[in-house]
Amino acid sequence: MAHGALHARLSLLVLLISACAILCSMTLVHAERTVYIVHMDKSAMPPHHFDPREWYAATVASVTDERATPQLLYTYDEALHGFAATLSASELRTLRGTPGFVSAYPDRRATTLHDTTHSTEFLNLNSASGLWPAAHFGEGVIIGMIDTGVWPESASFNDADMPPVPSRWRGACEPGVQFTPAMCNRKLIGARFFNKGLVAAHPNINISMNSTRDGNGHGTHTSSTAGGSPVPCASYFGYGRGTARGVAPRAHVAMYKVIWNEGRYASDVLAGMDAAIADGVDIISISSGFDGVPLYEDPVAIAAFAAIERGILVSASAGNEGPRLGTLHNGIPWLLTVAAGTVDRQMFAGTVYYDDMRGSITGISTYPENAWVVDTRLIYNDNVSACDSIAALANSTTAIVVCRDTGDLLEQLIIVAEAGVAGAIFISDDHDFEDSMPLPAVIISPEDAPRLLSYINSSTVPTGSMKFQQTILGTRPAPLVTDYSSRGPSQSYAGVLKPDILAPGDKILASMAPIHPFAMVGQTQLASDFAVESGTSMACPHASGVAALLRAAHPDWSPAMIKSAMMTTATAIDNTGSPITTPVFRNGTVAVASPLAMGSGHVDPNAAMDPGLVYDAGPADFVALLCSANYTNAQIMAITRSSTAYNCSSASSDVNYPSFVAIFGANATSGDMQFKRTVTNVGAASAVYHASWASPSNVEVSVSPGTLQFSAVGQTATFEVGIKLTAPTGGEPAFGAIVWTDVSGKYRVRTPYVVL
Amino acid sequence: MAHGALHARLSLLVLLISACAILCSMTLVHAERTVYIVHMDKSAMPPHHFDPREWYAATVASVTDERATPQLLYTYDEALHGFAATLSASELRTLRGTPGFVSAYPDRRATTLHDTTHSTEFLNLNSASGLWPAAHFGEGVIIGMIDTGVWPESASFNDADMPPVPSRWRGACEPGVQFTPAMCNRKLIGARFFNKGLVAAHPNINISMNSTRDGNGHGTHTSSTAGGSPVPCASYFGYGRGTARGVAPRAHVAMYKVIWNEGRYASDVLAGMDAAIADGVDIISISSGFDGVPLYEDPVAIAAFAAIERGILVSASAGNEGPRLGTLHNGIPWLLTVAAGTVDRQMFAGTVYYDDMRGSITGISTYPENAWVVDTRLIYNDNVSACDSIAALANSTTAIVVCRDTGDLLEQLIIVAEAGVAGAIFISDDHDFEDSMPLPAVIISPEDAPRLLSYINSSTVPTGSMKFQQTILGTRPAPLVTDYSSRGPSQSYAGVLKPDILAPGDKILASMAPIHPFAMVGQTQLASDFAVESGTSMACPHASGVAALLRAAHPDWSPAMIKSAMMTTATAIDNTGSPITTPVFRNGTVAVASPLAMGSGHVDPNAAMDPGLVYDAGPADFVALLCSANYTNAQIMAITRSSTAYNCSSASSDVNYPSFVAIFGANATSGDMQFKRTVTNVGAASAVYHASWASPSNVEVSVSPGTLQFSAVGQTATFEVGIKLTAPTGGEPAFGAIVWTDVSGKYRVRTPYVVL
Repeated sequence: MAHGALHARLSLLVLLISACAILCSMTLVHAERTVYIVHMDKSAMPPHHFDPREWYAATVASVTDERATPQLLYTYDEALHGFAATLSASELRTLRGTPGFVSAYPDRRATTLHDTTHSTEFLNLNSASGLWPAAHFGEGVIIGMIDTGVWPESASFNDADMPPVPSRWRGACEPGVQFTPAMCNRKLIGARFFNKGLVAAHPNINISMNSTRDGNGHGTHTSSTAGGSPVPCASYFGYGRGTARGVAPRAHVAMYKVIWNEGRYASDVLAGMDAAIADGVDIISISSGFDGVPLYEDPVAIAAFAAIERGILVSASAGNEGPRLGTLHNGIPWLLTVAAGTVDRQMFAGTVYYDDMRGSITGISTYPENAWVVDTRLIYNDNVSACDSIAALANSTTAIVVCRDTGDLLEQLIIVAEAGVAGAIFISDDHDFEDSMPLPAVIISPEDAPRLLSYINSSTVPTGSMKFQQTILGTRPAPLVTDYSSRGPSQSYAGVLKPDILAPGDKILASMAPIHPFAMVGQTQLASDFAVESGTSMACPHASGVAALLRAAHPDWSPAMIKSAMMTTATAIDNTGSPITTPVFRNGTVAVASPLAMGSGHVDPNAAMDPGLVYDAGPADFVALLCSANYTNAQIMAITRSSTAYNCSSASSDVNYPSFVAIFGANATSGDMQFKRTVTNVGAASAVYHASWASPSNVEVSVSPGTLQFSAVGQTATFEVGIKLTAPTGGEPAFGAIVWTDVSGKYRVRTPYVVL
Repeated sequence: MAHGALHARLSLLVLLISACAILCSMTLVHAERTVYIVHMDKSAMPPHHFDPREWYAATVASVTDERATPQLLYTYDEALHGFAATLSASELRTLRGTPGFVSAYPDRRATTLHDTTHSTEFLNLNSASGLWPAAHFGEGVIIGMIDTGVWPESASFNDADMPPVPSRWRGACEPGVQFTPAMCNRKLIGARFFNKGLVAAHPNINISMNSTRDGNGHGTHTSSTAGGSPVPCASYFGYGRGTARGVAPRAHVAMYKVIWNEGRYASDVLAGMDAAIADGVDIISISSGFDGVPLYEDPVAIAAFAAIERGILVSASAGNEGPRLGTLHNGIPWLLTVAAGTVDRQMFAGTVYYDDMRGSITGISTYPENAWVVDTRLIYNDNVSACDSIAALANSTTAIVVCRDTGDLLEQLIIVAEAGVAGAIFISDDHDFEDSMPLPAVIISPEDAPRLLSYINSSTVPTGSMKFQQTILGTRPAPLVTDYSSRGPSQSYAGVLKPDILAPGDKILASMAPIHPFAMVGQTQLASDFAVESGTSMACPHASGVAALLRAAHPDWSPAMIKSAMMTTATAIDNTGSPITTPVFRNGTVAVASPLAMGSGHVDPNAAMDPGLVYDAGPADFVALLCSANYTNAQIMAITRSSTAYNCSSASSDVNYPSFVAIFGANATSGDMQFKRTVTNVGAASAVYHASWASPSNVEVSVSPGTLQFSAVGQTATFEVGIKLTAPTGGEPAFGAIVWTDVSGKYRVRTPYVVL
């Protein structure tokens, strides 16, 4: 057993039963039990216990008030000190009085988010220069994925070009249902699964895939996005065709399955993250989060704190509850919170040709086949083109029917498919259609439609052709922040600007578990080894992969330095040279995106490799932040796991973060806030930086000093920032950025600020 | 107008009309006209004519016996000297008496034969070593394709990585229906079309695609096979997936469309080859041929002779009329005749899984989709499994039906598709099934079937799954000579062993013209940009591409030397280390292939690059061969185009060929034939070769001298070979090979012989 590792062991069971044999002969009173996560102070462990696990077991046994099946689910020694156990209300009361008790709270359900070819090109990752070659494509780095499991047969986990498993690796490949250790290799180096919390919450549950094998597909998609091997000729039914590869294609991946089809529990998430830390991953990537929990009861926050103490960077998804402000989760100061953006690609395209191929209109299609629709009669008239009646379409089965814009696209699709027409053209301004099309069909815009209709009206025998399986690259503008990406501020700690960064998350092609069909043509269902998914779930592994590359290129950087490098070099400009926008209405109207939507902006991996200056911060700094937040000692200790390693002698809400948020309140007419920041020189030894900033009319920014001089790598410098509200925000967050630029022009260190 | 070029010119039309105005005022007698190809002796051109074309026109005009529309279709100045014209019988009689007349024969129809991806791997072509890098992938070489046209939008003609068009190029990109000069580029550098012969034979014909645009697909397939640019992710509905590239992917391609949907005529073929020679191609590839024509009336033979005078190698398909002996066409001594072999790949595969994935059987499938057929009920019983009744299958629509082997596979396929079952498994020993499957289906062998049936019989609820779009690489044995590949001896000249060489021709994936759908699922027809085709039509462009590579690597080699290098280094052994075989029965029984099936064996491009010794031969040697064949002077001149450049002072049927055929007759009990050969050293300057040979029991071989010594590159040596029949062949050709091996072991020069 490795030092400090987590194990729920058969021996504990024996121990428990023995303990119970002594204690359980008392009067049996049946009481309803719930799973609780319990934090303990290891320093209070009585000397006669040789091992915390044994102590936890004894503790649980000591409060158990009836003969019962074993209640101890997990012991945790990395992410937290404590255990998960099924306890009744009275048992919990008793537990609160035992020596070493810190805190306890009920197990929670987690959200899984749909919170991934081309995205690595959009990130400008390439073999010739920049971060990929500098990082050897992530060689030697281990990414721990906390998710729904993995489909090991996926080509993304082919290890043909992988280096050996690092000797420092302490993980394991656990056998289970349809999963044997032989399914791990030099790419997928670990596979573990955790469902004791789930089982405890549903004692008679039948777990359909009781192993690390992915029962959902989400984990396969995210892990192949973060670290998948190159898979040529990947596509989703011909869409998005190209080589699918992870952002860190030579990194190792370890999967910790904590999210189950049958349910998702905090205790299991904690156990997975705990194991990842113990096993020795370098990066933890978690595309799910908990809503409405304080930091001291948020398993992601708790485990992430332990992670940064070990130098492990944690990257997490922001959530898909946007665009309203304050919908974000995983807004945890000591991890990287990732928002979802689009890439310069229209994934699902199809083209209509008319007038003997003289005219063409490209629109949206998801039709999964290269259907042969050539020189086919086009029909557009009042009788059929409402596309709301199968009977009316009865005479059009050898034709392409053009359906007018009734706002009922999905209903029309069903009708025309039922009617069995040869093809359909829908007039609609739905930009985001992603549903499957069971017949050959293309959606064209209301702007494009008139020239097609004009041709049909003016021709004796109008005919057309259609092509499918098209994907358009180089679309503009890109990126946009998706409307669904959850917005800050963080509900669990508003004093740090969240999200941190924007990464590709919309319509991402990556590997999928082949556990259900994805499309249907006629009566035949179709399978795919790849799927197109959208969400901050897809954005997170992109950021995790970038962090893995930076870990490989800069093994001496702390998690905070990696995060800072990503943030200060992120770009706030899209591919048209304008500020990144986000849709405000479905018809395409956009507004400039604020840092509450996109953090510092879109990650730029090659720039992050050489950021010039970094904002470092360590566990002690985050403890000081916790201390300033009026948390109780117990609450702080739930996170820090120690009352001696840290104390609240320093309390400061002003953590050394590469962004600023000044909260004055929606009704505030004025306000003034000071921030102190310390930067470390990681660029050229000799450098001179000047500060500049943009501010809206109701905000005044001051930076002092305005110039920083460095003469050595590793040297630090401190400056103060003042953010002053001079007129009411009117409830609309004001934002801008402070930029340190070195005089050579090589480095540009940008920190956004938001005034709320 | 380039020197010596062929042009059917408007000015000739004017000339003709003027001539006719003089001559056609004679009594008009309507007579039926046919197109004739007429050979003329240019040296007999009267001095008052300044140009052969003008002379031909005048000649035609002089024999015309009625006012008529212009009859001159083509003048030829490269491939032959002469013209094609529509003549009546009496006009022809008159023509025979005019000065300079050599010969004339009626125009003929040509055959088009169904006479990629992976095939270049099977040829061991690779970027790291061997012929591809040595030849710079064919850079600078121009391959002229004589075929059905080309689809210029095909990705195989992408010129992104191509060098500029060679300045020596004299070709053109002719506009026509749906074809503009802009459709040519640095890959497809020429496009010309010829159909005057077709039109003359069918005066009211409506040519559906009157340009070089491919109206069939054959030309697109062969040209992309010979010289197509790399196209990643090519497949035929998921089968054969890989990068499709030509054998010479950096060679230029010029298409001469001479084969039309409406018909194919020798005059047009001649015109195309004539133009190719004039335009300056390096290699001519022609995947069609004429049956039952003597050399002096075979347009391929005629044009090919002119080609080798220009140093142009001609590569032609052997035909698909095998396996009977003597079915071969293009058996022309001065070109490379190519037979078709298989590669180490089962193109169309699918797998049946049963017993909860514990059992699996891989068989044949052509189903074009990744259908989702999972855990579906399997049915096998007397009621339904004859699969001959739609009514009987009515209750099986949610099941996979197993159809027993009734020998009526295609009929069963139709029935189960009509019945609408979820899937079908056919038990059949049909190894070569290539038809489309309109429903999810796999064909399994009678050897594999019992374990599936046993599972079904012994299970309460037998279920199975099916996967499609599989292709199996590394199959053994390979190559086999296909049964359809036409066998020698050559009907037009039996004294030279034909075919010459074996190349990949079976189930070759290459680009296709998207002019019709290729598959159907349910009611939807499906298109494909690639197709799998079989035939010596596919083998020929493989050999042409190898010849192009050798031309690039050895620009100083004559066509005969290139051909000799390919033949003497060809391998007669398959990938199991046994002699190459050919099927004799449909159930898989094979026999060792003779040189009458495969020539010298399977082409080995990397070995051909450095053959050690070559057997060179030039136009004069082939003229000597013709002289020995008892052809008339006129017949010889039809080929040689000159009575002065060559004469029959030397007549010898023993041309310096890298193979031997001794024809004693099926009833011969004995015989003795002597051959003389001269080899040229192209390997190491200093070399010593020893002869060895294998012979069957009824043949004695002698080689004298048995050792050849060389001290310089370019040095020649002569030896004699005796082939003696010592017992009757019994009608069964006897064969073996003579091998010169140098003492260093580096070079191995193999020449097969056949005794008939």
